[in-house]
Amino acid sequence: MFDKLALIGIGLIGSSIARATRLKGLAKHVAISTRKLETLDEARTLGLGDTYTLDAAEAVEAADLVILCTPVGAYGSVMEQIAPALAPGAILSDVGSVKRHVVDVLKPLVPASVHLIPGHPLAGTEHSGPSAGFPELFVNRWCVLTPGPDVDAVAIARLTAFWGAMGSNVECMDATHHDMVLAITSHIPHLIAYNIVGTVADLEADTQSEVIKFSASGFRDFTRIAASDPVMWRDIFLTNRDAVLEMLGRFNEDLSRLQRAVRVGDGPALEGLFTRTRAVRRSIITAGQETAQADFGRPHASAKVPASALPGTAPELGIREHGGGEDA
Amino acid sequence: MFDKLALIGIGLIGSSIARATRLKGLAKHVAISTRKLETLDEARTLGLGDTYTLDAAEAVEAADLVILCTPVGAYGSVMEQIAPALAPGAILSDVGSVKRHVVDVLKPLVPASVHLIPGHPLAGTEHSGPSAGFPELFVNRWCVLTPGPDVDAVAIARLTAFWGAMGSNVECMDATHHDMVLAITSHIPHLIAYNIVGTVADLEADTQSEVIKFSASGFRDFTRIAASDPVMWRDIFLTNRDAVLEMLGRFNEDLSRLQRAVRVGDGPALEGLFTRTRAVRRSIITAGQETAQADFGRPHASAKVPASALPGTAPELGIREHGGGEDA
Repeated sequence: MFDKLALIGIGLIGSSIARATRLKGLAKHVAISTRKLETLDEARTLGLGDTYTLDAAEAVEAADLVILCTPVGAYGSVMEQIAPALAPGAILSDVGSVKRHVVDVLKPLVPASVHLIPGHPLAGTEHSGPSAGFPELFVNRWCVLTPGPDVDAVAIARLTAFWGAMGSNVECMDATHHDMVLAITSHIPHLIAYNIVGTVADLEADTQSEVIKFSASGFRDFTRIAASDPVMWRDIFLTNRDAVLEMLGRFNEDLSRLQRAVRVGDGPALEGLFTRTRAVRRSIITAGQETAQADFGRPHASAKVPASALPGTAPELGIREHGGGEDA
Repeated sequence: MFDKLALIGIGLIGSSIARATRLKGLAKHVAISTRKLETLDEARTLGLGDTYTLDAAEAVEAADLVILCTPVGAYGSVMEQIAPALAPGAILSDVGSVKRHVVDVLKPLVPASVHLIPGHPLAGTEHSGPSAGFPELFVNRWCVLTPGPDVDAVAIARLTAFWGAMGSNVECMDATHHDMVLAITSHIPHLIAYNIVGTVADLEADTQSEVIKFSASGFRDFTRIAASDPVMWRDIFLTNRDAVLEMLGRFNEDLSRLQRAVRVGDGPALEGLFTRTRAVRRSIITAGQETAQADFGRPHASAKVPASALPGTAPELGIREHGGGEDA
């Protein structure tokens, strides 16, 4: 599909692209470049590519597809390095979680002969680094592309086919619209999760250890996305400020109203909201974007339970590795 | 262990107790009572107990263990029915998510010969009803008991052994302290999740459908606990108001500070918070209260993906039923 794919940055997303590309034979040559020698060595040990270099300009030479997989805050300096080395006719894309800022930073630096098609695969886990990736990460996940109106249709079709071959559904949209949609689907949920986990991290030690102990009652759900890569998320909030503040305003208005309902003991208002919210989850499951299994399909009573935590009789329980759910 | 267990209410928790009791042989007889005939019939079809009745007073006759598993808001009327029928020496417990209010409601109505030991298993899923239960639900989960200072130690030991046999770790604490700890570990997370899902439910239809489509980028995590039982959660916020408002105050203060950091572009403050919050998740995993698997162990690229959503080449991908994670 491509002669040479250059991946600049090889964390969770970059390494998953490398694995899927190899598995599906989507590029004859995969060149990997990253800033830290340690990370590059890890990628080499994992056998993620064909060539490895600390010099991003070297990686992009003769590449017909270049994908930036670094934190968004590094794009400016990466582009200064690679711009002179980009091959005419190459597609330049990325996987950053914000798109308006990316267009603003990249566009002035991209040679006229290169097709700039920013991208954002809506996929990931809370783990980071080259070893966190896996080739199925993009299967049945959306990948949003935000090409400008003047971009070559053939280049867009080639990049669309590349993501499609990795299992993604591809949608093109305006960069500003992308940032607004992602502010509510991703950035505000992360901000809220970081905030509540931060509130707990600030509690006095005694209370904090109780919160950790009893976290299965709801809190632990929030800690997953609050364990996401700190630098990546710092850059997202620095570069999608307006959409985040707009959506945070709506969230805060709604929270004030809900707080008042709790204060005055307005049972019908509480029950009404809690009933409406169930329908949203059903829609997400129906859309194929979430598992229908109870508790995200979390393992219950897995083998990982330390023996000391179980009473003597527990091994006789019909312990299930996976499961939970209404048919148990 | 007990001659007769009476379960008043047979939803997710009640039915899980019934299943675990049967599996482990913890009671010679399990009597099930619930207010709705439809739910009672469902429990009967599932074979959850030995006897079934709409009359709670009949269920508790000669029972040496009675556990209230209804929403907390129903406790007053249930107690009026069952108080005259409670056997001398019986243990009366419950599974409600708030405990100070439960003590205040139940204590004046409990005959002097009955041992009142309120309880709260910190376990559950977002699914409700008799068919949602499963016997491993309590394995390696905490069960908090909040007996008053004057309660018989033998009765406490018997109830502790009962929960231990179902796989739980049991801890006794003061009812008011329980409510404070649960406000931050459970009630505020649910309130926040209900709120953000509510914000989305109020968006115009076009935007809402996009949020659902792209929900895998973070939002869907919040929809799980926002799909919990509406009546149960209404009652929790009506009966743990003070602790919830206190913890919500802290959350709001922190969110204002975070909002300001986004507004002024304070990168170091954002990165600092996002780094500290990672440690909290690691603590929870170390404490055995969460899976270490990426993405909660959510299935990636599961067989449930509709064929229409996948490109033609997808079946060739090494699709995994369970997994994702750093070793893939």
